[in-house]
Formats: sequence, C-alpha cells, structure tokens
Amino acid sequence: MKKVAVLGAGSWGTALSIVLSDNEHDVRLWSHRQAQVDEINIEHTNNRYLDGVSLPKNIRAFNDIQAAIKEVDAIIFVVPSSAIREVCEKIKHLLLDDVTIVHASKGIEPESLKRISEIICEEIPSYHDNDIVILSGPSHAEEVALRHPTTVTVASKNENKANFAQNLFINEFFRVYTSSDVIGVELGGALKNIIALGAGISDGLGFGDNAKAALITRGLAEITRLGTAMGANPLTFLGLCGVGDLIVTSTSIHSRNWRAGNLLGKGKTLDEILSEMGMVVEGVRTTKAAYQLGKKQHVEMPITNGLYDVLFKEKDPKLVVEQLMKRDKREEMDDFQSVKL
Amino acid sequence: MKKVAVLGAGSWGTALSIVLSDNEHDVRLWSHRQAQVDEINIEHTNNRYLDGVSLPKNIRAFNDIQAAIKEVDAIIFVVPSSAIREVCEKIKHLLLDDVTIVHASKGIEPESLKRISEIICEEIPSYHDNDIVILSGPSHAEEVALRHPTTVTVASKNENKANFAQNLFINEFFRVYTSSDVIGVELGGALKNIIALGAGISDGLGFGDNAKAALITRGLAEITRLGTAMGANPLTFLGLCGVGDLIVTSTSIHSRNWRAGNLLGKGKTLDEILSEMGMVVEGVRTTKAAYQLGKKQHVEMPITNGLYDVLFKEKDPKLVVEQLMKRDKREEMDDFQSVKL
Repeated sequence: MKKVAVLGAGSWGTALSIVLSDNEHDVRLWSHRQAQVDEINIEHTNNRYLDGVSLPKNIRAFNDIQAAIKEVDAIIFVVPSSAIREVCEKIKHLLLDDVTIVHASKGIEPESLKRISEIICEEIPSYHDNDIVILSGPSHAEEVALRHPTTVTVASKNENKANFAQNLFINEFFRVYTSSDVIGVELGGALKNIIALGAGISDGLGFGDNAKAALITRGLAEITRLGTAMGANPLTFLGLCGVGDLIVTSTSIHSRNWRAGNLLGKGKTLDEILSEMGMVVEGVRTTKAAYQLGKKQHVEMPITNGLYDVLFKEKDPKLVVEQLMKRDKREEMDDFQSVKL
Repeated sequence: MKKVAVLGAGSWGTALSIVLSDNEHDVRLWSHRQAQVDEINIEHTNNRYLDGVSLPKNIRAFNDIQAAIKEVDAIIFVVPSSAIREVCEKIKHLLLDDVTIVHASKGIEPESLKRISEIICEEIPSYHDNDIVILSGPSHAEEVALRHPTTVTVASKNENKANFAQNLFINEFFRVYTSSDVIGVELGGALKNIIALGAGISDGLGFGDNAKAALITRGLAEITRLGTAMGANPLTFLGLCGVGDLIVTSTSIHSRNWRAGNLLGKGKTLDEILSEMGMVVEGVRTTKAAYQLGKKQHVEMPITNGLYDVLFKEKDPKLVVEQLMKRDKREEMDDFQSVKL
C-alpha cells in the first residue's frame, strides 16, 4: 500500500482516485473547493464531474494541500494545464526526497510553449527532470469510474519511475503500459485535443463520417510531423497516446473537446460554449500553443491553423473545413513527407 | 468524357457510379440481377443498397456484361471478393488494349492468400500487373451518394494509370489522392475489416469507448506488422487507407463489419447474422485469410487469431476480448517491435 495524493478533483482526477483506491492505496484527493471536499467525504459522490458514481469510502478529500501531500509516496497532478504553476508553487517546499511525481494533465502552455512536465520541473527545481512520469492514453473518466476495460501508457526517462507508476495503477480493468518516449506521450495527449475540436466542428456542420475520418487522418499526420520535429518517436503517434486517444476523443460524445467543436460547428460562439459547458476545454488553449509551435518549428499545420482562425479570429468554421477539403490533387504521402522515421 | 463500366451494383458500386456520372462520364453499371437492372433504368433507384437515393438518369444499368464493357476506357471492379474470378472469366477476352482496370473491392482470398489485384492479373493475363489501380479509403457509400465530402486513395505502380484514375473520379466532394504503394493500400482496406469486426464485438459486449480505442490501436499495430512483412510501406497504415478507413469502419453504425461484430457480441451466431443482414460481410472471409497469412509470415496476430476462434470455432467472444485485455505488463512499443520503418 502506498500513500498517494491526487491533486485535482475533476472527472479524471476522481476516476484515477477510484483506480488507486481499488488497488488499496491510501488515496488523498485534493480540491480547492471546500464544498466539493465535503461532498466527497460525506456523500462519497462528486456529482458535478462523475454524475451518479458512488466513490469508494477510503478516498479522502482534502481542501488543505499541505495535509493532502504530507509524507506521500506519489503525487498525481490532474489539474487543468493553466493551474499547474500555481499548484507547484504551493507544494514545492513540502516534498519527500523520494516522492514520485506523475502528471495526467493534457496541454501545452502558450507563449512559453512548454509541455506540462517541463513546467513542473521548472517550478520544482529539486525534482530531477528524468524522474517525472506522464500518464496518458484513451481513457474517458466516466468509463474508468465504471471499471470498463481501459489501457493507458506511463512514460518516463527513468525506467524505475515508469515501473513504479505502472505498479501503482495497474489492475484487472486498467491496463498500464510503459514507454520511455516522454515527449511523444505528452505531445500526443495534448495535441489530439486540437483534432478532436476539428472533428467536432465537422460533425456539427453535418459533414458525415467520411469527412471526419479524413480530418482525423490528416490531423494525425500533422501532429506526428510536429511531434517528430520536437524529438518524439513517430511510432508513439501510432500507439495508445496517438491514434488511440485521438479515436476516443474525436468520435465520442463523452469528449469535451469534441462537444465544444460540435457546438462551434452548429454556430455557437466560443464564449457561449465555454460558459455553457462550465468545464475546461484544453484543446482551445492547446490550439494557440500548437499554432505558435508550428511557426517556431517550421512545420506545416493546416488543421491547427484553420482552427486557430475559428477560435481566435472568428472565421466561419464552414469556410475553414471546406478549404481543408479542397486542396490540389496530390500524392497522399505528401502529408508524411517531413516525418523522418 | 470517358466510357466507364462499373461491375457490381451493390452500395459501393452504385455510389461510385454517381461520382462518375457527376463527372459527366458515360457510366455503364453491370448487375447480374435483371430486376435490379430494371429498377435502376426505370425507377432510377437501387433501394436495397442505397435506400431513398435518386440516381442520375445517365447511369445505365446492364444485365449483359459484354454489352456493359463494350469499348470502355475503364472497368471498375466492385463485386464481392469471392466473385472476382468468375467476373474476370466473363470479360477477359473482350477488353480493349488500352483499357484501365481499377478495383474497389476489399478482401484477401483464403487458401491462395492472394490480394484482389493479384487475382485479377492472374485471371486476365493480357493485362499488365503494373497497370492495375486500387481505389480505397474511408468512404461509406451512403455518404458518397449524398455528396458528403469524402477522400480516397488510388494506388498503382504505373503513375500514369494512377493519374488517369484520379482524374476520372476527382471532384469537389470526392477528393482523390495517388499512391504507389499498391500492397499497403490494398492490404489496409482488406485487413481493417477484421479490426472493425472486433470493435463491433467489443461494443456489443458493452465494453465502452476506452476498450474499443485500445482494440483499434492494437489492431492497427497488428495489421501494420503483417503489411510491412508483406512489403507495404508502414506509413500507408498511418494514412487514409489505414487509420482513416479503420476509424470509419470501426466507429460507425453504417459499417457492415462493425454491425456483424456488434451482433456477435450480443450473442447471435454467425449464420443468424449473415442471413439477417443479407449483404456480404467481407471481414469474415478476410479473417480466415489473415489468420493463414499471419502463420505463413510468422507475424504475431492476437486479435485476428481471437476473432478466428470466435467466427470459425464458436469460441465465446467475451472470453476472447477479456484474454486480449489481460496480457502481461509490458512496454507499449512491443506492439511495434517487428515493424521495420
């Protein structure tokens, strides 16, 4: 039994807490909202994020982050990417020497263009860069909470840390693979949200499954191009954190990014959508970061650029999707020409 | 304007005829059923295969295959894979020297383990192997018939023939890419039906989107392994005829292979399903061929083998899917270790 703090009580943090609780760890779930902490500790529910799910009674929620992380063996970051720096600041002086840090957030920071693991290591200088673990893969929280079979990948440059995280989470319903491709696993999970937004727009416009499949396929080529330019193994994008996560996020109504895109395709504005959904839509922020990354890395990213215009320049989504469909006649492998395998 | 014979008036042959008709070609659609020929010529519908769609009046149907192919510039094979040899036999002495043969069927022949292009070239020895063209990609016939945006790939070792086919089909709604990877494009289209059957079973068992994404991802690795062992470019499996077609076929209720799998997962027998659907389910025959190919090529194919047991040995689908989920802890890249890039 390990003592584990899960930072962030959204749907994914709560679902991962259920997995850890099933594995008989001492689970300490931190939320910055006292009312949510009380609901989890007294009612054993978290209805805003996992409607109708009964939480195991050994998941204890904390509003005091210092109490939550006290003497823990592992810390799991599951806060929105925009809150990572602030949470690091709160805990960096309180960590045990041999604590393992895992993060399961998906995003890239605009302007700095840093991945979340880079942000954590920057904010907590005492933690060794090689020791950070990324958890990513095709995993709707709602299904994990119901113990539907799920597979994810944990990636770390330190094999011992990857194995530690694998042992922490693995069970009969939750299969955990290891990987050493930190950059690929982290970028796959972040960038796929952009393509999911695009797939949602295509569906919202009523364009059908053929168009969506084309968009997802070309989106995969695009994020693989960017990922390999940044040092990822292109095969990672063929795996759970690439194709797998892309499928789940682009074809399921569970996906917030798909839902946000779908509403954009139906004519709502971004502001209306975000206030209506009341949850963070990581793909919006990631689109801005990827747009900037594509320019910096000189990688052609037509889907990301089109989405950037829709999200931040109020361009008509129909016009953007039509432009993406109507390019010149070309060879299919042109999409992959800059992927060095 | 070209004179084009489309052999096979199922949903896909009819949809491709609509594309060719929109492009103002002289379209001659052959069916072996006189009643269907009459329906197309008189009512301008083909309701059993494209319910509710009005066909352009310049699509002329023929019951006499000799009349259908007389002096045509191109022949498009869209018959079930099991009928290819018989149709070749009927036409092989009647072809013009410079005719272009395209096929849009998806399958592999059990026992001989031949791809459809290999069968056509074997049955029509006067036609040069390099000149055959494969048309494949993520394309539900129902959506093509409604002019929803669709992308496909045409592959040929002869670039001129690929370009000819591209020009024949391309229009505003139907985007056509070219490729020289005949083996990859042909195998991607055939083998993805196996994974779609598996995805349908997973859904039929109620296993959720996370499990399906894992199955599709590992299925993609499996068909990529087999394809590269047979000489395909692995990048083709990342493209429209791999990932793209796999997504459309595995996540849509339009897909016959997914539907057949779904019914298997819900407890129906293969015989019940095939007689209830009344259409060819190519994935069943392809599973047998791929099972044999995996053994011949010494490629590990756990999903194909599991499906083979379900389809031909009446093994319980639930048991097979559970076994696929519960393998040992391992590195994710193990799935791709034999893919030589």
